[in-house]
Parts: sequence; C-alpha cells; structure tokens
Amino acid sequence: MVGGSVPVYDEIVLSTALMNNILTFDSVSGILTCQAGCVLENLSLYLDDRDYIMPLDLGAKGSCHIGGNVATNAGGLRLLRYGSLRGTVLGLEVVLADGRVLDCLATLRKDNTGYDLKQLFIGSEGTLGVITAVSILCPRKPKSINVVFLGCETFEQLLKTFQLCRGMLGEILSAFEFLDSECMRLLNTHLKLSNPISDCPFYIVIETLHKFLEEAMTSSLVTDGTVATEDTKLKYRWNRVTEALTHDGFTYKYDVSLPVEEIYQLVTDMRQHLGRRAKSVVGYGHVGDGNLHLNITSPARDHALLSAIEPFVYEWTSRHHGSISAEHGLGLKKRNYIYYSKPRQTVALMGNIKTMLDPRGILNPYKTLPDDLK
Amino acid sequence: MVGGSVPVYDEIVLSTALMNNILTFDSVSGILTCQAGCVLENLSLYLDDRDYIMPLDLGAKGSCHIGGNVATNAGGLRLLRYGSLRGTVLGLEVVLADGRVLDCLATLRKDNTGYDLKQLFIGSEGTLGVITAVSILCPRKPKSINVVFLGCETFEQLLKTFQLCRGMLGEILSAFEFLDSECMRLLNTHLKLSNPISDCPFYIVIETLHKFLEEAMTSSLVTDGTVATEDTKLKYRWNRVTEALTHDGFTYKYDVSLPVEEIYQLVTDMRQHLGRRAKSVVGYGHVGDGNLHLNITSPARDHALLSAIEPFVYEWTSRHHGSISAEHGLGLKKRNYIYYSKPRQTVALMGNIKTMLDPRGILNPYKTLPDDLK
Repeated sequence: MVGGSVPVYDEIVLSTALMNNILTFDSVSGILTCQAGCVLENLSLYLDDRDYIMPLDLGAKGSCHIGGNVATNAGGLRLLRYGSLRGTVLGLEVVLADGRVLDCLATLRKDNTGYDLKQLFIGSEGTLGVITAVSILCPRKPKSINVVFLGCETFEQLLKTFQLCRGMLGEILSAFEFLDSECMRLLNTHLKLSNPISDCPFYIVIETLHKFLEEAMTSSLVTDGTVATEDTKLKYRWNRVTEALTHDGFTYKYDVSLPVEEIYQLVTDMRQHLGRRAKSVVGYGHVGDGNLHLNITSPARDHALLSAIEPFVYEWTSRHHGSISAEHGLGLKKRNYIYYSKPRQTVALMGNIKTMLDPRGILNPYKTLPDDLK
Repeated sequence: MVGGSVPVYDEIVLSTALMNNILTFDSVSGILTCQAGCVLENLSLYLDDRDYIMPLDLGAKGSCHIGGNVATNAGGLRLLRYGSLRGTVLGLEVVLADGRVLDCLATLRKDNTGYDLKQLFIGSEGTLGVITAVSILCPRKPKSINVVFLGCETFEQLLKTFQLCRGMLGEILSAFEFLDSECMRLLNTHLKLSNPISDCPFYIVIETLHKFLEEAMTSSLVTDGTVATEDTKLKYRWNRVTEALTHDGFTYKYDVSLPVEEIYQLVTDMRQHLGRRAKSVVGYGHVGDGNLHLNITSPARDHALLSAIEPFVYEWTSRHHGSISAEHGLGLKKRNYIYYSKPRQTVALMGNIKTMLDPRGILNPYKTLPDDLK
C-alpha cells in the first residue's frame, strides 16, 4: 500500500540490503542497535536465542527491513501489547537531503533533551531523510503464550468479548484480531485452510498469557472456540488472509482506523453499496487498535468498481472521524486524499517541515504530501 | 527542574487551570480526551470509577496539569509498563505562536496519515506551541497489584535482581524502582518513616501482578524483603524521598539517564569527588528506564559546591553516553548544557524548527534551546 520503494518517474531507488549488521545488543535493558537493512525476521531470530523478541511482528517479516519498518511506522500484530514504534524506537541515524548525517542514535529509554527529532522521521516514508541505523527497545520473550480462536454471531458480541477480555486480562492480553466469514471462506477456497471451529459470522484470534478459553466459552458471547495446540497454526490463518485475497482476483486494499465500535459498519455499508459489482468484500483487523483492513476483490482491474469504492470509502472514514491510513502510510496512491483525515493547516505545516529538511525535493519526491503542496 | 512556568524576565505566564473539562471518554477503547488544565489526580479519580487508570503517575499528581505533563513529556512511575507519552498520547490541540489552532486531536491508536506533528509538541516545553487539549490512551485497571520491598548488598545484585525479575515476570512487571541507604536515612531522619526491612545498602520497590517475593527471597541476590499489606505505604516511601531532601538542606537535583549498568556508578563517583563538601549525596531512580535521580544537599546554597558538581556531572554523563535530562526537560537552567547530550547539528535543526513555528520567539522564550542559537 505504501509503495515506498516503487519509483514513479525518475527516482533513484536506494537499497540498504547490505547494511545488515547488528551493531550492539544489551541483554540487561533489551536495547538493540542495528543498521537499517537488517531483515525483521533475522532480528527476531537473533533475539530469540537471547530470550527477547522484537516489539513488532508483520506478515512481511521475512523480507522487510527494519529501516523501512521505521520509515513507514509499521504497526502489525504486537502493537496492542508493546505500543507503536514511536515508543519503542529509541534512536535513529538519518542521512538528510544535503548528505549530512544526523546522529540521534540514542539508546536511552528516557531522554528529554531538546526536541525529539527522530519522531519526525518515524513514519515519514523517506520523504524527510534516509534512515541508516535504528536502536529499538525489545521486550523479553513471554514465558507462555496461549492462542485462542473464537467464533461470534455478531460484531457487537465480538466487541463485548473484547471488553470482557480487556477487563479480565488487562495487562496480559497481547493481541485481539478479528476476521469475518468472508475471510474464512477465502482461506478455505484458495488456501485449503479448514475452519478449526464451527461456522460463524465472525472469528477472533486472542493472544494472552492466561488460560482464557474456559471462561470465554461459558459466557453467552462466544459461539465456539479452540486453543492452539501448535501456536503457529492458528495465528498463521489470520496472517494468510492477504495471500488468499490475491488468489481471489484483483484486490482493492484499504487500511483505515476508526472508533472501534464502528470498524465493521464500514464493511457492511460497503458491501451494500457495491452489491454485485464486487466479487468479495471482506474485513479483518486489529480490534485493539481500531484498525480495519477492508479488501474488495474483482475478477480483474475494474475502473467502474474503483470509482464506486472511492471516494465513498474516504468520505465514510472522514465522516466517522477515522484515519484513511492507519498502519500503512499515504505513499503515492493516497497522498491526495490526505485532506480526508487532516485539516488543511496541519498539512500546510507538514509541507513547511518537508521544505525545511529537503528544500530541493530530492527525497521520495512523489509520496506522502499532496500535489497541491508541490 | 523544568521551571516551565517560572518567568525569567518579561514573559507572560499563561494558566490553563480553568480549562479543566473532560471532553469525552470511551470505555471500550479507554481513550480519554480532556482540556489541558485537568489535574492529573482528578483524571485518575475519574478513571478509577470506570475501571481504568492513567498511563502516567507522578509525585506531583495532585497539582500538575495534563497539558504540562505532555509539554514536558513527563515520565514517572508507570513508564516501564505503559511506555512514554509519545506512545500513549493519541492527539493534541495546540495554539501556535501566531494564534492559529492546530487540530491534531485524533483519538485513533493507528494513524499514519502524513507526518505525526503532535510529536513536535510533546516534550517541547511550550516553546513551539501551547497545548490546549489532549487525547490519551488509558490502560485498564490491573486486577491485583503486588508491591514488594527488597534489600540488596550491592548495586550489581540489584541489577541481577532486575534481570531475574524481567526474566520471570516479563509482561507483568510494572515498576522496578530503587533507592540507596542514604535515601532511607533521610526518610528516617526527616520524615520518621521507618525502614520496613533490615538495613541494606540498596532497596528495591517492585510492582507486579505476580506473587514474586517467595521466589526472590530464595535467590542469593536479596538480603531481606517484605510485601505491602496496604499498597500505598511502601510506594509512598519512594515517592517521599524528594520531600525528605528538602528537609536536609539546599538540594542540587540532577535527572539523568544512562545505560542501566552504570547508573549507580555516577553516585559513587560523585560522592568520592565531593568528599566532605556535600552534606548528602543520594541516588534513587527507575531501574527499568535507566533513569537516575542524583541529589546533593548542602546546609545552604553553596557556589563552591555547585562548581564542584558542574560540569563534572554533565561530563561524566556525556562520557557514558547518557542524557543530562531524562524525564525532566532542559528548561531554563540546563539549556546551555544541551551539547553534552546532543550533537551540534541536531541542536541546529531544533533551532530551525523553533524558528519555523515561532519566528518572533514569543513562546517560552528563554527555555530549552541554548543561548548561542538565539
């Protein structure tokens, strides 16, 4: 969605793949410092041996670089528990547009000395500077993890389960993800992944340190449920929805965040709005973060369908005070929709910051900021 | 230490005390939106009734305003568990130097739409804009909390206890604070607070969701320990060190962060360096964050003592790659020491941002940035 490394016209694409060294790791504090080209999964494996984990986990972990994760402020599966990269990234080294190296590579959890400049570069998609090294705070590997898979009749019950879960588990709830029956159908059809429980309109994946299942099952909120015997299998299912979608046809992908009560209403409204024009309209996401992945497939690229989806989806999100780019950034395709989520004056200030740091506009020039600021 | 509301020459001090309304609270997501003048303790009480807590807790909670907490990026006692305000503050409303109101008052956990401008204002001590409203993500109230008070023979054993604790408790450790025997002596002398365990060189306060004490006591690391019967009493002790210090004499206060292995070495070195010139040299702090509060008392204000302390303390911190302002900001007194923690070029860029947002220099004019940038 971000298309961060996709050239549009005349840009030079810079690879940091050879900058893949781990610089330091402190096993007391859990602070890792590494070069920007380290692959997320390699960092995870390195930490696993040392009883730590990375504070973020993504479907793309086998190929994505930590520098890119930071540049796009990647969210992913562990955000509910460990928070965003804005809290876990402690330091950055950044090369500015004029070639100067900005050294903000601190490894301190607390540091209130002047302005926290590294925040400017987190999530700026390479438009303000090139991240070359990262220091990040890593959590200890949890002692035991329970993954629970539940089914609900309505989205309202799913939300009530979320509240129950937060109330009971609070501190030890690390993920609460959902998928709808359309997602499950695609997983069955295209990837031959069978449903581990009985058919339901909604499914929940919960990750916790607690044996939660028995208690959830006795509530009237949940229709059916199971606990992972091998962790990976249940989690894997959620992760593979994207893959199933690519088999279903051309996919229009939207990544929005909304007040959590309203996230599924967008799927329902879109389904009704599009009717038979779409092949599948599916929703899955991170309930804990109010983050919905709305995906619409069609047999092939379809301009009529696209104009039925947009700007409908942006208007809907804006009307419900949501963000049109939740865990993915604006990139190329969504840059001109920025005004659906941000006031004009805020965007103008973003333009000033861009001009201050990159006066000649050489860094990722066609991304993030709208054309009318150019 | 920050002296945020202390006028230096000719400034107008702005009070937000009447802007004390809670605007919204969402009990599903735990997102609170309120005006900047709300007192932290009032927000805590409001949330307590709703089974939530504020993600920050400070000694000054009875009087400090949430807007000021955000403007100074306050750390405090819950940072280890809930992370910094950079992650928990979801939105801000800010009045800029030219009177425009910048609306970044989002209530979304995930929002990657353009640059995250609110980060500029967190911790900028009112020098870039005036925060008028805040939205913040609040954690659920934990079901049960155990507060444990332990004693150690050496700081090395204290650090080993921290590692043990993080390894065993991981997810459910919410605070790990320490104080030295000098702090305990001051608490005894000035506040008549007795030591709840046998005398030791170092004391630890642990807050966890787990019954940790039995296991810690069987390790050889810990000399003595007790569990809080009434939570507040043990925690209270740690909180009151500042108060005990004021009874001890004029206090020179330093708030630094360092790699956690080295935080106590600064106290030892300072004690040796000052010898009899100081009345007391004490250290206490948040081990989980590498944050040391170093305090030096003397019967009265003493210029000779001050010049023995500074720049020694800053040079020591700089040599050990620490920050001279950990949870408190630079404010007035420390603005010219910024170069001990930040490279020149980084500070120059901070100056550019200040000029961009406040070209006439009317916001908190004598704070944070060093004189040579003026």
